[in-house]
Amino acid sequence: MKYLVRMDVNLPPDMPREQAEKIKATEKAYSQGLQRDGKWVSIWRVVGEYANYSIFDVDGHDELHGILSGLPLFPYMDIQVIPLAKHPSDIH
Amino acid sequence: MKYLVRMDVNLPPDMPREQAEKIKATEKAYSQGLQRDGKWVSIWRVVGEYANYSIFDVDGHDELHGILSGLPLFPYMDIQVIPLAKHPSDIH
Amino acid sequence: MKYLVRMDVNLPPDMPREQAEKIKATEKAYSQGLQRDGKWVSIWRVVGEYANYSIFDVDGHDELHGILSGLPLFPYMDIQVIPLAKHPSDIH
Amino acid sequence: MKYLVRMDVNLPPDMPREQAEKIKATEKAYSQGLQRDGKWVSIWRVVGEYANYSIFDVDGHDELHGILSGLPLFPYMDIQVIPLAKHPSDIH
Amino acid sequence: MKYLVRMDVNLPPDMPREQAEKIKATEKAYSQGLQRDGKWVSIWRVVGEYANYSIFDVDGHDELHGILSGLPLFPYMDIQVIPLAKHPSDIH
Amino acid sequence: MKYLVRMDVNLPPDMPREQAEKIKATEKAYSQGLQRDGKWVSIWRVVGEYANYSIFDVDGHDELHGILSGLPLFPYMDIQVIPLAKHPSDIH
Amino acid sequence: MKYLVRMDVNLPPDMPREQAEKIKATEKAYSQGLQRDGKWVSIWRVVGEYANYSIFDVDGHDELHGILSGLPLFPYMDIQVIPLAKHPSDIH
Amino acid sequence: MKYLVRMDVNLPPDMPREQAEKIKATEKAYSQGLQRDGKWVSIWRVVGEYANYSIFDVDGHDELHGILSGLPLFPYMDIQVIPLAKHPSDIH
Amino acid sequence: MKYLVRMDVNLPPDMPREQAEKIKATEKAYSQGLQRDGKWVSIWRVVGEYANYSIFDVDGHDELHGILSGLPLFPYMDIQVIPLAKHPSDIH
Amino acid sequence: MKYLVRMDVNLPPDMPREQAEKIKATEKAYSQGLQRDGKWVSIWRVVGEYANYSIFDVDGHDELHGILSGLPLFPYMDIQVIPLAKHPSDIH
Repeated sequence: MKYLVRMDVNLPPDMPREQAEKIKATEKAYSQGLQRDGKWVSIWRVVGEYANYSIFDVDGHDELHGILSGLPLFPYMDIQVIPLAKHPSDIH
Repeated sequence: MKYLVRMDVNLPPDMPREQAEKIKATEKAYSQGLQRDGKWVSIWRVVGEYANYSIFDVDGHDELHGILSGLPLFPYMDIQVIPLAKHPSDIH
Repeated sequence: MKYLVRMDVNLPPDMPREQAEKIKATEKAYSQGLQRDGKWVSIWRVVGEYANYSIFDVDGHDELHGILSGLPLFPYMDIQVIPLAKHPSDIH
Repeated sequence: MKYLVRMDVNLPPDMPREQAEKIKATEKAYSQGLQRDGKWVSIWRVVGEYANYSIFDVDGHDELHGILSGLPLFPYMDIQVIPLAKHPSDIH
Repeated sequence: MKYLVRMDVNLPPDMPREQAEKIKATEKAYSQGLQRDGKWVSIWRVVGEYANYSIFDVDGHDELHGILSGLPLFPYMDIQVIPLAKHPSDIH
Repeated sequence: MKYLVRMDVNLPPDMPREQAEKIKATEKAYSQGLQRDGKWVSIWRVVGEYANYSIFDVDGHDELHGILSGLPLFPYMDIQVIPLAKHPSDIH
Repeated sequence: MKYLVRMDVNLPPDMPREQAEKIKATEKAYSQGLQRDGKWVSIWRVVGEYANYSIFDVDGHDELHGILSGLPLFPYMDIQVIPLAKHPSDIH
Repeated sequence: MKYLVRMDVNLPPDMPREQAEKIKATEKAYSQGLQRDGKWVSIWRVVGEYANYSIFDVDGHDELHGILSGLPLFPYMDIQVIPLAKHPSDIH
Repeated sequence: MKYLVRMDVNLPPDMPREQAEKIKATEKAYSQGLQRDGKWVSIWRVVGEYANYSIFDVDGHDELHGILSGLPLFPYMDIQVIPLAKHPSDIH
Repeated sequence: MKYLVRMDVNLPPDMPREQAEKIKATEKAYSQGLQRDGKWVSIWRVVGEYANYSIFDVDGHDELHGILSGLPLFPYMDIQVIPLAKHPSDIH
């Protein structure tokens, strides 16, 4: 099942650089693992913002919430989830 | 270049059914042609709404505006365009 | 899978009473059929508004969109869908 | 009397983990007690957010406010309350 | 039980004057009957707007929804309902 | 002259409890004095929120601003003021 | 007593020109009479919009509402009223 | 003096094509005359919307309002005006 | 040239009283100097808020921005600027 | 390819003046380098706000995001990006 997810990251500007770098590295590994598993289908940067739009393909709501709430950056994020259905004009 | 586009359709409820069906059929053909050309990469229905989220991959702003303003449903749509950049965690 | 859905109905005030009554009757039968099937779990009126909050329990996004877009009042509604996951404090 | 309640939790990211865990445990016990009493009828997690939608069934406004303002997480929450009436299509 | 209610009236400017006057007269009688019954406790005009703020004192949600949806101007109104609890500083 | 006022209180969660209790006690006495003077006509708690709706009956804008800006909680409040006129349907 | 008022005019584009001109002429005379009376102290056009900001100096809420609801363009306007108090830095 | 202006055009979908084409042609000539005069410095299409962002360089507010309110499409537009000052980093 | 300006002041509640008093005194002197120069034509308190609406009459955008960005309270303010043109109904 | 970009700067008021001055100086040099390269075509101050509107002319989304996320003030900014297409009335 597909979901469009927007994530906005709000790291406090006074967080020590080392701590920030460490969280971001963990986040990257976490994201790439899920991409390789085919759960996190796509991820794009919103131009000019510390934010992304992503497509997830998972079994359902509980699996998606588990993934999102497990993000290392989750405590610093605003997340918006939009469930996507098949579109009648889709040729795939 | 990638863009996320949200389209909300507002057909007047009193539009004659035949006219509405005709516009929708033309719209579908128009969309599927662009999907086959690889310009309109993805299209999903927003659950519960007469709306879609789509990914476009085009040469730039002018080409995208040409495509969108040429949509048969364009006069009845609210459209929002978000430019997408490559994300550093993207494995593709 | 559970979804919270809010539906706001906007019937044009100049719609002939008979036509309005007929749509509402069809809507009611449609809703009650789905309630009996266990798909439309709950429905409440928002106090003071021609609107409802409902809980749906369906197989997924496509089934829910099929149900909602099939509502007789769909062309006159604004609908908002919120996917619901299990809450860790839920005792059920 | 039924109410739909949305609660958004905003714990400061720099709250010591122990303190956060303790508040959450108290919150969980508080919620489950009210669920067992039949006051807090349903609770669902909003997918991707530290938030819930809940249904309460209480005697009235004063009882509900007492319950909500007594939540251990109340000082960290944004809460929205929507009074619900019986819907004419409800089969229950 | 107390509720604060805001009602915004949107009569179409091209409604025939006679029809508008008739609805307003029926509305006034309806409101004054409920005021005399002690259900509609207060009503004030919002300065500069075709709108009012009102206080209702009724048995609960169902009674309030019945009153509001029975307003002759209901099809032309946007209504917002806010449940009110006793305030600890209230001296009454 | 009547005014509807909404006050939202935002006390920082890390304010020492004693300090918070002291401000609230002063606030309560201040409010009750004005209620006894007939200036602060009504006060209700917004269900689920640290907020109130109040009715004031004062000589005019300057008096109301003096009262509101003198509230012990004023530095922690968002306040919204709505001037109220007599409604033609009011029976009082 | 002073009020800042914003008025946004929404004349339907298909109103016959003669009718529109007549309403505007009546509105102008109405406004200029109140300006000469010292009630309507100032009026400015919002650049680029069919809207104005005005300052009124009247006895109170009821007088202001009477003036505003008597505007020939009132049925086509959105109006917002902000009560103004004396500012401590004002030298006048 | 510089202003950033956003114009959103809302032509009713049922306006006869001929009438729409005529207004647009007049609008284009009007815009291009002002561009040649150096008053309307820049105009860009907002991608995916029937809207533009423009830069104007005029003597002041009155001249700008005269230009904008004289637009043939003015009755069908929402216009937003933002005054621009010289930026200290500007190298021009 | 006239501008309507709204200023909302957000002093942190934990700013030492002395520091706050000193900034406010400097602000007052700064404002009154500009009032005497005829640049800052009017200033009113928004009832119930730590905010003002003001009218400025200056040579243009650069002068206004210089004045506003020089306000002692500027780092603590949200400021909104609305350019005002002469209104055709204005009798002055 | 052209983009309209709005940047709002939110420096914490308690940032040491020296640190603030240093960031601003680096920001200025960074901006002026890009202006000389023809990438950052225009920059204007929004009157009354610590904000700017800018026009960028770059190869595409990735280049723009690289520029914006490299701004020394980026961690303190809210940025909004609007892609601009050629307007049919543009004479240039």
